[in-house]
Amino acid sequence: MNKFLSSKANSIEPYTPGEQPRDKKYIKLNTNESPYPPSPFVKKAIAESNFDDLRLYPDPNVYELKKEIAKRYNTKENNIFIGNGSDEILAFSFMAFFDKGDKIYYPNITYSFYSVYSSLFDLNEVKIPLKDDFTIDINDYKNLDSGIFIANPNAPTGIYLTLTQIEEIVKSNKDNIVIIDEAYIDFAFDESASSLIDKYDNLLVIQTFSKSRCLAGMRLGFAFGNENLIQGLKNIKYSFNSYTINRLSILAGIEAIKDEKYFKDTVSKIIKTRENTKKELKLLGFNVLDSRSNFLFVSHKNVFAEDIYLKLKDNGILVRYFKSDIINNYIRVTIGTDEEMSTFIENIKQIVKN
Amino acid sequence: MNKFLSSKANSIEPYTPGEQPRDKKYIKLNTNESPYPPSPFVKKAIAESNFDDLRLYPDPNVYELKKEIAKRYNTKENNIFIGNGSDEILAFSFMAFFDKGDKIYYPNITYSFYSVYSSLFDLNEVKIPLKDDFTIDINDYKNLDSGIFIANPNAPTGIYLTLTQIEEIVKSNKDNIVIIDEAYIDFAFDESASSLIDKYDNLLVIQTFSKSRCLAGMRLGFAFGNENLIQGLKNIKYSFNSYTINRLSILAGIEAIKDEKYFKDTVSKIIKTRENTKKELKLLGFNVLDSRSNFLFVSHKNVFAEDIYLKLKDNGILVRYFKSDIINNYIRVTIGTDEEMSTFIENIKQIVKN
Repeated sequence: MNKFLSSKANSIEPYTPGEQPRDKKYIKLNTNESPYPPSPFVKKAIAESNFDDLRLYPDPNVYELKKEIAKRYNTKENNIFIGNGSDEILAFSFMAFFDKGDKIYYPNITYSFYSVYSSLFDLNEVKIPLKDDFTIDINDYKNLDSGIFIANPNAPTGIYLTLTQIEEIVKSNKDNIVIIDEAYIDFAFDESASSLIDKYDNLLVIQTFSKSRCLAGMRLGFAFGNENLIQGLKNIKYSFNSYTINRLSILAGIEAIKDEKYFKDTVSKIIKTRENTKKELKLLGFNVLDSRSNFLFVSHKNVFAEDIYLKLKDNGILVRYFKSDIINNYIRVTIGTDEEMSTFIENIKQIVKN
Repeated sequence: MNKFLSSKANSIEPYTPGEQPRDKKYIKLNTNESPYPPSPFVKKAIAESNFDDLRLYPDPNVYELKKEIAKRYNTKENNIFIGNGSDEILAFSFMAFFDKGDKIYYPNITYSFYSVYSSLFDLNEVKIPLKDDFTIDINDYKNLDSGIFIANPNAPTGIYLTLTQIEEIVKSNKDNIVIIDEAYIDFAFDESASSLIDKYDNLLVIQTFSKSRCLAGMRLGFAFGNENLIQGLKNIKYSFNSYTINRLSILAGIEAIKDEKYFKDTVSKIIKTRENTKKELKLLGFNVLDSRSNFLFVSHKNVFAEDIYLKLKDNGILVRYFKSDIINNYIRVTIGTDEEMSTFIENIKQIVKN
């Protein structure tokens, strides 16, 4: 308790990002980064860019990147918002679409940052329990009386709803904003809900460059929605920080979006590795949720998850473990390269056989 | 009015950043950028960096950059906070040190973003009038009953308070946080108030890489303060967006801080150009405030400021004009290169002789 801090700064329990240890080199399967580098055109564009211009502010509206995203996703620049990572867009969304005290709905297991935002902005969170198998019952989300956040695929389960299911939720909540957080959608074999934004004025869809675009290090997220929703996000952004995206991030984003072949290749590789890893873990006695993301959420029939996490860490392999009640016997494993996953499986074999 | 937006997103009047026109090439003297490129080591470090690592999240704590700043400013990493531009640190400060309804003091002419933040976070702003000559009377800021923001040098006047005057204000407000926004301090011939943070636990000092470090395009700001204040900022940041600084901005910042010679050279050049421009404008009938920043705030005895602004714009020179009452007969002119300022002066001569 410090007398100079606001009650919020004194009391809030911040989000805990995944470990970024500096003590030694790990096989990092803990923060859902891509195991593959960004498109080679990212390097080329940045290395050959005009460094003298770094003295100048970037375009606050990030128009050139919006143009490329609009082209790729068959929409218009005015339906796009760019943020400093999708987390920034989430934060702005809590400010743009909710007043203090408003109810906000999301699953009881999902990206844990939502609860932090609800606390930061004094919202009244209502957590809707998942079913016992960790799936979402979409009937729980129909005809609600306030805004809804759904991560699709969900985190940390990786389980996803089809586009048809998402549309049912959006359609039945005409007076409530529905925000679909699609950080992992590119790994799901299904279409993004961004295809629905012209049809529904209550739908915001958030994506990121951090996973399927291999650019976690450059901090870029984007959102699709009706112009009114985008304007709401802009009103908050321009009242908070006008220039959140720097010049080199803009360049990186443009090249990553344009290189569709590289994107498809890396996503396919990750999906293939994921499906292979699923099979191997099942053979070793794991319950493996049907993840459509770039990670697996798994639980072993005999060995407790925290033990697996700690033993892997000792062996130089980092996975994510959440102490939270319902999921405290699960570990979340990011899909790495085939080679990294072989090493992981070899280690797991030793751990579960004892 | 849109039914999905929060009352804030519907009603707030956002900050208006300086024009970034795309219609033609201007001599840009409107957003206080440096006319000089960043240190050549910035280019070298980025072009030679490991682009494969852009797939990985950056260090959320930005430790390596803090280390360099700590060395340069003779302080400790735990006394430093890094933000995505100083605007982000300002925004976090409003959240970390003020509760809804709290009073907040600043001069009635200053960086206009402060008022936007007060509105965004529902603070009770108290604007203390400047004296008729646009200077601050420090007695107005002694023994107040709530937190204080002072831009030093002030914007858009460029007038500054000495370190001794700042200390008097800080000392007399032991129970209130005093935030000194030093975006332009390096152009002031005076020491940063960061030298006082070990002595006063109520002092936060904010600086930026956007002006004297020639890196507006990379979005980097930093703050100095007692560990408790820094912790307050961190609590807010980790509840808002864990990774606000990307990998290449970190590299750019490190090189810009390390290249002390380049920093001193460019700052000296800008100061020299500023003092020459002051003299010339005075000879042309301008009232020139005693700016210690990288811009001048000037008013002509015969020609109205808005006319000057518009005619300069027609001629391809952008300066900043604020329509606000008290200062509506002033233009703010960023100091460019000697060559740019010669062109500016030639144009001004034509405009004021008619």
